[in-house]
Amino acid sequence: MLKTPWEYRYAHRAQKAKTSEIRELLKLTEQPDMISFAGGLPAPEVFPIKEFQQACNFVLNERGAQALQYGTSEGYTPLREMIARHNSRFSVPVTADNILITSGSQQALDFIGRLFINRGDHIVVESPTYLGALQAWSAYGAQYITVPADEHGMNTDYLEEALRVGPKFIYVLPNFQNPSGSTLSLERRKRLILLADQYGVPIIEDDPYGQLRYEGEHIPSVVMLDNQYRNDTDGEYSGNVIYLSTFSKLLAPGLRLAWVIAPPNVIQKLVMAKQASDLHTSTFNQQVAYEVAKGGFLDEHVKVIRSVYKERRDVMLEIMEEIFPTEMSWKKPLGGMFLWGILPQGVDAAEILKMAIQKKVAFVPGGSFHPDGGKNNTMRINFSYSSPDVIREGITRLGETLKEVFHKNGHK
Amino acid sequence: MLKTPWEYRYAHRAQKAKTSEIRELLKLTEQPDMISFAGGLPAPEVFPIKEFQQACNFVLNERGAQALQYGTSEGYTPLREMIARHNSRFSVPVTADNILITSGSQQALDFIGRLFINRGDHIVVESPTYLGALQAWSAYGAQYITVPADEHGMNTDYLEEALRVGPKFIYVLPNFQNPSGSTLSLERRKRLILLADQYGVPIIEDDPYGQLRYEGEHIPSVVMLDNQYRNDTDGEYSGNVIYLSTFSKLLAPGLRLAWVIAPPNVIQKLVMAKQASDLHTSTFNQQVAYEVAKGGFLDEHVKVIRSVYKERRDVMLEIMEEIFPTEMSWKKPLGGMFLWGILPQGVDAAEILKMAIQKKVAFVPGGSFHPDGGKNNTMRINFSYSSPDVIREGITRLGETLKEVFHKNGHK
Repeated sequence: MLKTPWEYRYAHRAQKAKTSEIRELLKLTEQPDMISFAGGLPAPEVFPIKEFQQACNFVLNERGAQALQYGTSEGYTPLREMIARHNSRFSVPVTADNILITSGSQQALDFIGRLFINRGDHIVVESPTYLGALQAWSAYGAQYITVPADEHGMNTDYLEEALRVGPKFIYVLPNFQNPSGSTLSLERRKRLILLADQYGVPIIEDDPYGQLRYEGEHIPSVVMLDNQYRNDTDGEYSGNVIYLSTFSKLLAPGLRLAWVIAPPNVIQKLVMAKQASDLHTSTFNQQVAYEVAKGGFLDEHVKVIRSVYKERRDVMLEIMEEIFPTEMSWKKPLGGMFLWGILPQGVDAAEILKMAIQKKVAFVPGGSFHPDGGKNNTMRINFSYSSPDVIREGITRLGETLKEVFHKNGHK
Repeated sequence: MLKTPWEYRYAHRAQKAKTSEIRELLKLTEQPDMISFAGGLPAPEVFPIKEFQQACNFVLNERGAQALQYGTSEGYTPLREMIARHNSRFSVPVTADNILITSGSQQALDFIGRLFINRGDHIVVESPTYLGALQAWSAYGAQYITVPADEHGMNTDYLEEALRVGPKFIYVLPNFQNPSGSTLSLERRKRLILLADQYGVPIIEDDPYGQLRYEGEHIPSVVMLDNQYRNDTDGEYSGNVIYLSTFSKLLAPGLRLAWVIAPPNVIQKLVMAKQASDLHTSTFNQQVAYEVAKGGFLDEHVKVIRSVYKERRDVMLEIMEEIFPTEMSWKKPLGGMFLWGILPQGVDAAEILKMAIQKKVAFVPGGSFHPDGGKNNTMRINFSYSSPDVIREGITRLGETLKEVFHKNGHK
């Protein structure tokens, strides 16, 4: 008998998929003495473990048979109703029919690819943009049209040109974007909605960090502004935006719980994607999250998260200010989990990462976040995961790395 | 502003996806006074709720911060190692590198579609076969070549003809198949492996019920026989079979935990699919399942499940024998959760379902399990979910329905 030639049997979409060089490099950061600013991990210190324990016991005692059984593809109805109430209170009015529960926002991104993308379709994205979305959609053969972004998010002055290509949809992360930390201004949000409507192109709004603002005023979500623009007050959202958010940053990512808000006919199609791809999200996890969150716990808990992350961001900024060489610049994010560093043109952050790993500190080079290529002189630095002391030590190590680089390269 | 024409924006694969008439009919079976033999649900009475509660408390107390954090795409290492040990003990020798944890077996089926199927590729399936696999793979544009099956499973006399078409893989459910309850004989398993090797076509073995045998001798899995055939003893499986199994039938489906066994290079590709589609399966659920299962609990627990399900099967068979009209025939399944009923040629089980729903009892008409069409005179009846008393009542109602049908149709 002969060996199975597996690699020749893979589908076109899978033959293209490669593990990136960066991902391989970052595997080195799993060493225990490494200080990693590379991941996008929440601080484990803020996980509400006691509340989870109470909720697990309650759910198993009161309705264990239901919580451990198969559930519906749409998601646990009380959880969907709770999200609808919460969303109606703070943002756009929606009903449970506007909501699908997914196993993390990554799954929502995958389903959007599955639902909308034919091979070769164009998607408008910010540059830089979230890598997980590119990964999900490239599997469906997407091509990207990039719109440049600055500290106020996607520069809508360049959006109309992109829309004239005839893209399937526009993807935007308006709040404290991963990776750049930037926030889309109110004026640009309105311009985005107007242009999208004018060209009949839907918007995907990805908002994992919206509630994690550490300073300044909350800016209304794109989906809410779209609803206002449509002056639609019937309580069920049926506009031009698909909105994604998640419990990963508010409760804990290990549960894999997120949600999609969309017009009910789009939700119905997404439910069919859910059926074919994994039937439904864990009934148990949905019930546990519902029990933790239902009494308004999240309103209080998010204040704790904000204060912890704000301190970490401020410590990081303070040390960077103190010790980083002048060749390096960065932007102060108003919220979220990431800080965006910019090196001089021509300096490759991937090379700096290799040196940093020698000093036991890591970050993510920013090149791969740019689907249009280039911008290898950028870096994403996470500030949510490490404690202030670890941040001080890690940024010091990174500062030493940078000083060596600029010394060696003859920069001052 | 105008409405978004969502339906024109959907991708080709999604425009084709329709909710089936049967699925709509079965929604009627969610009424509380309905006795439903339609679902494929485990008995909630056998869920080990106490053990789950202990495990949840242990995991949250001992390593809550880790259990609620992001995890690796491959799955929780101790769980993968436990599955490898268990599998090496009872079946083919494997290591953790042969194993990927998925969110239920449906997700494994989806990933296999994602990894292997180009639009138009042919897949060899039994007829009837598992509907969830057809749903998953049709989304990737699969076409099906059917091989007829009888009570000994796929009739391998017809397999070679199918293999000459050049299919991507062969899909087989060897034990107590969903929907037909049939079990692939040892002789046919060996023939399947031989022919698959001869034509270089991989086999997907889907085995959710393998341990749920109520009589007769266990038949070795296809993956194990394939390994024996290859005489490969190096402890890491690298043959021609991808094997799927699940905790849904052994512990509880609400956790969404299943696993894939495959050669390590195939697992690596599947891990990339996992990354793009939902990052990883719930860390918490994997740790909880590990704690429940690690001390050999499953060995004992599966005996409980077997005795409960065997009783339910036997009660169902007994009442059917007693009251069903002679026009209806059925096969006694040796295990699993389903019994397969056969009506006379020309009788449409979907019509019978409509009448049965009037009498508050439901099953799944068998037509849609046949990708080659026809066989509308078949029905899938679940015996695992309902208690013996409910089975007695439900089968009595179904018997009355059948008597009316055959009376009206002039059958005796």
